[in-house]
Amino acid sequence: MLKFIKKTTKKIGQSPGTITHVGEKKVERVTLQVIDYDLSRFEEKEVQTVEDCFPLKESSSISWINVNGLNEVHIIEKLGTHFEVHPLVLEDIAHTGQRPKLEDFENYVFVVLRMLSFCEKSQELKSEQVSFILGNNFVISFQETEGDVFNSVRERIRKAKGRIRKMGADYLLYALIDAVVDAYFIILEKIGEKIEVLEERLMNNPSQDILQKIHSMRGETIFLRKSVWPLREVITNLEKGEPDLVSEKTSIYFRDVHDHTVQIIETIETCRDLVAGLHDLYLTAISNRMNEVMKVLTIIATIFIPLTFIAGIYGMNFKYMPELEWKWSYPLVWGIIILVGGAMIAYFKKKKWL
Amino acid sequence: MLKFIKKTTKKIGQSPGTITHVGEKKVERVTLQVIDYDLSRFEEKEVQTVEDCFPLKESSSISWINVNGLNEVHIIEKLGTHFEVHPLVLEDIAHTGQRPKLEDFENYVFVVLRMLSFCEKSQELKSEQVSFILGNNFVISFQETEGDVFNSVRERIRKAKGRIRKMGADYLLYALIDAVVDAYFIILEKIGEKIEVLEERLMNNPSQDILQKIHSMRGETIFLRKSVWPLREVITNLEKGEPDLVSEKTSIYFRDVHDHTVQIIETIETCRDLVAGLHDLYLTAISNRMNEVMKVLTIIATIFIPLTFIAGIYGMNFKYMPELEWKWSYPLVWGIIILVGGAMIAYFKKKKWL
Amino acid sequence: MLKFIKKTTKKIGQSPGTITHVGEKKVERVTLQVIDYDLSRFEEKEVQTVEDCFPLKESSSISWINVNGLNEVHIIEKLGTHFEVHPLVLEDIAHTGQRPKLEDFENYVFVVLRMLSFCEKSQELKSEQVSFILGNNFVISFQETEGDVFNSVRERIRKAKGRIRKMGADYLLYALIDAVVDAYFIILEKIGEKIEVLEERLMNNPSQDILQKIHSMRGETIFLRKSVWPLREVITNLEKGEPDLVSEKTSIYFRDVHDHTVQIIETIETCRDLVAGLHDLYLTAISNRMNEVMKVLTIIATIFIPLTFIAGIYGMNFKYMPELEWKWSYPLVWGIIILVGGAMIAYFKKKKWL
Amino acid sequence: MLKFIKKTTKKIGQSPGTITHVGEKKVERVTLQVIDYDLSRFEEKEVQTVEDCFPLKESSSISWINVNGLNEVHIIEKLGTHFEVHPLVLEDIAHTGQRPKLEDFENYVFVVLRMLSFCEKSQELKSEQVSFILGNNFVISFQETEGDVFNSVRERIRKAKGRIRKMGADYLLYALIDAVVDAYFIILEKIGEKIEVLEERLMNNPSQDILQKIHSMRGETIFLRKSVWPLREVITNLEKGEPDLVSEKTSIYFRDVHDHTVQIIETIETCRDLVAGLHDLYLTAISNRMNEVMKVLTIIATIFIPLTFIAGIYGMNFKYMPELEWKWSYPLVWGIIILVGGAMIAYFKKKKWL
Amino acid sequence: MLKFIKKTTKKIGQSPGTITHVGEKKVERVTLQVIDYDLSRFEEKEVQTVEDCFPLKESSSISWINVNGLNEVHIIEKLGTHFEVHPLVLEDIAHTGQRPKLEDFENYVFVVLRMLSFCEKSQELKSEQVSFILGNNFVISFQETEGDVFNSVRERIRKAKGRIRKMGADYLLYALIDAVVDAYFIILEKIGEKIEVLEERLMNNPSQDILQKIHSMRGETIFLRKSVWPLREVITNLEKGEPDLVSEKTSIYFRDVHDHTVQIIETIETCRDLVAGLHDLYLTAISNRMNEVMKVLTIIATIFIPLTFIAGIYGMNFKYMPELEWKWSYPLVWGIIILVGGAMIAYFKKKKWL
Repeated sequence: MLKFIKKTTKKIGQSPGTITHVGEKKVERVTLQVIDYDLSRFEEKEVQTVEDCFPLKESSSISWINVNGLNEVHIIEKLGTHFEVHPLVLEDIAHTGQRPKLEDFENYVFVVLRMLSFCEKSQELKSEQVSFILGNNFVISFQETEGDVFNSVRERIRKAKGRIRKMGADYLLYALIDAVVDAYFIILEKIGEKIEVLEERLMNNPSQDILQKIHSMRGETIFLRKSVWPLREVITNLEKGEPDLVSEKTSIYFRDVHDHTVQIIETIETCRDLVAGLHDLYLTAISNRMNEVMKVLTIIATIFIPLTFIAGIYGMNFKYMPELEWKWSYPLVWGIIILVGGAMIAYFKKKKWL
Repeated sequence: MLKFIKKTTKKIGQSPGTITHVGEKKVERVTLQVIDYDLSRFEEKEVQTVEDCFPLKESSSISWINVNGLNEVHIIEKLGTHFEVHPLVLEDIAHTGQRPKLEDFENYVFVVLRMLSFCEKSQELKSEQVSFILGNNFVISFQETEGDVFNSVRERIRKAKGRIRKMGADYLLYALIDAVVDAYFIILEKIGEKIEVLEERLMNNPSQDILQKIHSMRGETIFLRKSVWPLREVITNLEKGEPDLVSEKTSIYFRDVHDHTVQIIETIETCRDLVAGLHDLYLTAISNRMNEVMKVLTIIATIFIPLTFIAGIYGMNFKYMPELEWKWSYPLVWGIIILVGGAMIAYFKKKKWL
Repeated sequence: MLKFIKKTTKKIGQSPGTITHVGEKKVERVTLQVIDYDLSRFEEKEVQTVEDCFPLKESSSISWINVNGLNEVHIIEKLGTHFEVHPLVLEDIAHTGQRPKLEDFENYVFVVLRMLSFCEKSQELKSEQVSFILGNNFVISFQETEGDVFNSVRERIRKAKGRIRKMGADYLLYALIDAVVDAYFIILEKIGEKIEVLEERLMNNPSQDILQKIHSMRGETIFLRKSVWPLREVITNLEKGEPDLVSEKTSIYFRDVHDHTVQIIETIETCRDLVAGLHDLYLTAISNRMNEVMKVLTIIATIFIPLTFIAGIYGMNFKYMPELEWKWSYPLVWGIIILVGGAMIAYFKKKKWL
Repeated sequence: MLKFIKKTTKKIGQSPGTITHVGEKKVERVTLQVIDYDLSRFEEKEVQTVEDCFPLKESSSISWINVNGLNEVHIIEKLGTHFEVHPLVLEDIAHTGQRPKLEDFENYVFVVLRMLSFCEKSQELKSEQVSFILGNNFVISFQETEGDVFNSVRERIRKAKGRIRKMGADYLLYALIDAVVDAYFIILEKIGEKIEVLEERLMNNPSQDILQKIHSMRGETIFLRKSVWPLREVITNLEKGEPDLVSEKTSIYFRDVHDHTVQIIETIETCRDLVAGLHDLYLTAISNRMNEVMKVLTIIATIFIPLTFIAGIYGMNFKYMPELEWKWSYPLVWGIIILVGGAMIAYFKKKKWL
Repeated sequence: MLKFIKKTTKKIGQSPGTITHVGEKKVERVTLQVIDYDLSRFEEKEVQTVEDCFPLKESSSISWINVNGLNEVHIIEKLGTHFEVHPLVLEDIAHTGQRPKLEDFENYVFVVLRMLSFCEKSQELKSEQVSFILGNNFVISFQETEGDVFNSVRERIRKAKGRIRKMGADYLLYALIDAVVDAYFIILEKIGEKIEVLEERLMNNPSQDILQKIHSMRGETIFLRKSVWPLREVITNLEKGEPDLVSEKTSIYFRDVHDHTVQIIETIETCRDLVAGLHDLYLTAISNRMNEVMKVLTIIATIFIPLTFIAGIYGMNFKYMPELEWKWSYPLVWGIIILVGGAMIAYFKKKKWL
């Protein structure tokens, strides 16, 4: 659970604006992908050095520079300096573990988001930081690893599907953010499925390891919530078209993303309620089971303890015990035993314990 | 419970504004019903093709086009294009699972609601998406299936009952939304009855399956709440007459709907409290029952264990045990047994365990 | 508990503005009482027909028309039409179960409140709807039954006590609302007493029926809260003198009512906390009692089970058991039994279980 | 706990502005103390009749009239009438049980506070209403009993310590309110000590009476909270210098009181959390203890029940039981008994139950 | 836990503006360190008397006066008087236990923070008050003890690292506050580690002392929360550049601190949730363990109680018991015993209790 509390000790005491990569090193080498397009033209390439991207700043077409990997900070620094980005912003890009935020500068907008993915192998949530710099005619995106979440956007640019080639860099930013937000729905479905599976298993056999699973589900929803709540604020700002770089025409599209975010938040809250409900259900199942165990003990003990007492009586060795001599005592005792036992069982039946 | 988390994976990666039907296919063929009326005239017909509705856009009378079924998206698309509706809106209409919202465009207003119904057969809540496009002189409504909730409105138009024929399209929208909101009261009554039944059964016999029912009631109230909360915001906007298309005269009527919505929300919150109370009651009933079981065990065991010990003593085979030879030992032992047993019972009576 | 969810099915599907009485029929015949007064003059009468009230609309003195009973809607309708009240308002008056609200129209103010009373016989809260129409020089009040809550106001008008005869219709409205709000304090005291009684009984003997009482107390506080929360908003509006018909001079008096309302709300919240505390106390008392039962079982069982074992050993029939032949074995065994038993008791004393 | 719900039935039905003392009669005779001072002069006296205070209204020096006791309402009335105080305000002064509030009139400010003290004898919180009327050059304070909380202020005036003699009546009000608020800290310390004592006792021996203490602590924090929350609002208004009678120079001092109030509120919230934590701890301690009891029972019972069975076997009286005749059977059975018993103990040791 | 409720009784009754040291005496002698710098020059010295600092007020370079220790109030008083600080501010500086706040005066800004450190030896959180006075060209900082948290700032000034030497006193304040806030992350990591350790131990062996640890962790998070929440408000004010002394250029840096504060608050909330989760887990683990104990008892008792009864039957001494004479009775009884015991075990296996 500790992973929720990001280690940042490494940075403490450094002068602000010092760009240091804080976080796991997830890729071997940082790569840069460039897509440059306008309504009529389209070009896609993997560039070798940062300097190759520099001319894009002045070009009239829309450029999308995608940086995969944050561990070579000098690349971020060079790129940032050329595109006139504030050192504190570059610091935030390299320092993973930022909470989602939007910062509006004079000639660019800085957006940080958390991208979530579900690792099928470890059945765990994975979280990655994605940052965007939106300029007048370019978007720079920074990812920790090369992901496939932006592939649909690439595809739409390539095939000129929908409006993407007709609109500006702000629409590109919208498309990218929309792709990140859409990925949350997949996570929510996974969690929904896990809750359903747990619920079913709980009804059948509430074992110890389910408790552990519920506990970790709880941690996951807390984590998700922490990632998505600030996202809402970011999108609200974009929807209202607060940054000058986001045109009114595009802000309608952000309204759509906003609706999705609100829906995601509500679903997470529902999940939290459901997980809390599961925990209550588990506790009740446990105490029901305990009840059942106790009932069996009570029934067996309360039936046989009095009977054993009766047997004990006639096991006494007194010289003068008239019953011992009688011919029909033994069957009589058996009769009493069956009677007493039967009466007990009838009582329990009446009490609905049997 | 998974149904609360709508599957939307189908859509992910598509270009925004692509109209795809997401949701169950609930009707075989999409049908269109048209009612066209003004103060003096009234006409009702089922049209065959979308194109038949097109002239209504320009007519001076009030027109209500009701679309039953969302699975033939080309109908929605044609209709939407003719009535100049934004592609993102058409996408929302076809994509069920939207949260209630109001979007105000220049020449039309878009409203999405959730219509709830209670299926008597499966004893389950059913939820359906209803969308409205309010234009200057028309209302287009989209339902997933043909329902009977709008029948009372149709009846009022036919018989010119109340104000409906005297007022504009905004009043028609009010009448339709009012019909949807009124249906919530029926749901609430059903839930109220279910709570009452559960409460009574709980007092008599807290069985395992009641727990499951309480658990699913809880899920239902969470679901209801999620459906109604955003509704409030929608109605508030209409009540304030924010969209230009809603006249001040009509906004007084929306104030009435607003009151209903607030009442519904409060009743849902009360239901939530009551269901939570039921769960607590269940737990307490369980632990009370456990207590009772334990008491029986304790009483039987504590009475007979000492008595069995006494019998055990005189079952020993020592050669030199003077009591064994005495003439009155056996009745004496019986006396002791009765005394000890009686004392125990008196003690329990005093403790109020019996 | 179902009563909290008002049945309204009767109304659904009706055209808005249709006046239908929804609620219990509480009086046989609707009666109208009129009090007409100014600084110097005072007249009180019971009128036979609605038409008798009509002249009061134009009179220069202050008139108070009190309508007892809502089941003859034609009376409400006639009165409302003459005094130019909006049909939706009349609908609300007849349709009991409204939440408290204030609606400000051009030439009159409409206020709905809930009047609570405590039925000594059934020991239950009763709730009634009271509506007021404040005009320029008149107040019309609508009650479900003839109550005695307004008697003190009548008395003050009759005897010209305090300011009431010197001030306008708005002050009369204040006096009436104040009377309704004051009645809440009596309810709160009743509830306070019930809580105190429950608390005392809980400490002495936490029986099953107390649980039921706590549960129904909980329902009552939920219900009270639902009635009073919207009241606050109503009074705030009056206090701020928002409606034009409430003069600044009178709004100071509404500030006083506002203070009372806030005090009532805080007391209800305190009651909720106390009732929740009672439930916790009950649970703890139950588990304490369980504990005590378990301790008795444990002590008896753990003392006698080992002793019975010892007795059992010497009840064995082996041919070669040297101890059986010894002269002092029997007293020795008794010695061991007393020793073991005593050690056990000492152990429990040390553990503070005895 | 009922005391939290103030009895006010006495007042209901009275005309507003009627001054009636509601509350306990805490002093035999109402006394009036007057302190009159300016930078150079200082006079302190106990006056006999209200009329003696009347000249102070016009004097140019600062006057502080302290009224001890509220049961002689005619004194409040006379004083109030002379100083032109609104009848509703006088009603509030006499009617104890007001929630803290500030009312700003044209030529005076009315402040009501709750003064708390801790009664060492009954170990209970006591609450008293204190009201202040701040005029241009006077402060009138009303207390239920003669307290010592204002002594430090008197001392400062007498000895001309600090700024008090140099500043106006508003600063005097500040000094008095500050004295009242400072007294809360003493209460909080008492409560803190009580929590600490309870916590320690809980760790050592969670007995039944601790539960009762926790329960009453809970009531106390609820009560404290109710007293202090509205206080914050009062002080905020004074801090902002909203009433004209509070000069900007003095409002800086109220900022200090505001800080204290916020600190008190936070500490109360912390106390609430701690008390809630204590209750949880109690419950867990109880269930831990139960666990321990159960373990002892289980260990004793599970060890001896099988052994008793073995003894029982050889207590049977069958004619043909070969073991009975064997020479070493008896020691052998002892061997088996020791073996089985030892194995059980080993098992429990492994399970960490011993 | 009492330490959270600061003792302030010492101060009560004093005239406001009286500077008294309230809190532990943490250093023997108060020391003053002065750093004076501008872009080109840098001087660092430990001054002997307060008067040595006085010239710095007029110097054109940036001066940082750091006061270690608060117990010699005359030093604070002299310094404060020379730098024209309001007496109430000086009182707050000396009176530890203030909640974080910012007060903006005409020619200086006063900031109070809480500095937290984690004492490795006692494994406890320690809290210290730090105050700052920001003037036009100076910052005065007051610490309770000499700490090492400002060393990184000193280092940066000495080595002219980053922007610090190029910017004004407001940037120095930023650097100092940033250092304090950064230290919170270390605390959070410690707490995160402790939670992880507890969680692991809980899964393996939920012992009594873990409960105590969870309880004290809970207290720690409550305490942390209380320290950090008001901090947010302070930073927000600085970020918005509200005080005139904070330039717009520096307020961007405060935005960075603001992000950190929000992140810290969210992490604390997460910690609270996690600790609450731990408590629930503990309770469930306890009740699971109880369950297990009960199961063993039930199994042993229910198997052997009936068997003992069978043995008891044939221990009876009746004269006429035909079975006793039979040759194969004894083995037959053994057969029955094994059969009954086996059936029991099979039943438990089926119920999954074994």
